[in-house]
Amino acid sequence: FVIPAGRTVVRAETARAAEKINTIEFELDKPKVVTMDSVDAGGKKVYCRCWKSGTFPLCDGAHVKHNEATGDNVGPLIVSGPKKE
Amino acid sequence: FVIPAGRTVVRAETARAAEKINTIEFELDKPKVVTMDSVDAGGKKVYCRCWKSGTFPLCDGAHVKHNEATGDNVGPLIVSGPKKE
Repeated sequence: FVIPAGRTVVRAETARAAEKINTIEFELDKPKVVTMDSVDAGGKKVYCRCWKSGTFPLCDGAHVKHNEATGDNVGPLIVSGPKKE
Repeated sequence: FVIPAGRTVVRAETARAAEKINTIEFELDKPKVVTMDSVDAGGKKVYCRCWKSGTFPLCDGAHVKHNEATGDNVGPLIVSGPKKE
């Protein structure tokens, strides 16, 4: 099974690269980008889930441009802490 | 500017579709999938950021298979509530 150099390999690579989500290449040195964070009582944080934010792991609205360009419908995760007593 | 029917349109569509992240087509009826959730004092939740989880918005480890298939390095978001007093 001989893979002709050039186009086919490039296309396979481009197809594979196209499926990547972390296109801002955030923490590429890590095999897996796991974020640990906390939310205070009465607090709230808006987290990015499109991997395009300039303030990753927090959302900066970059999903709007991504959705327009791709027809996708991804959006952020909003996490609140417990109510303040 | 005439777009030849068939291949070109299909390729553009496939390229565009390939850039989508929400491939499990979660809540496709919504223009933007925004999740609101809360974490209790002493609590912790693991949220999906690869949009492949069967228990979305929570993580089920699906990012492992995605990363292996694409060479990506995405991983979950772990959010803790404030310490219990």
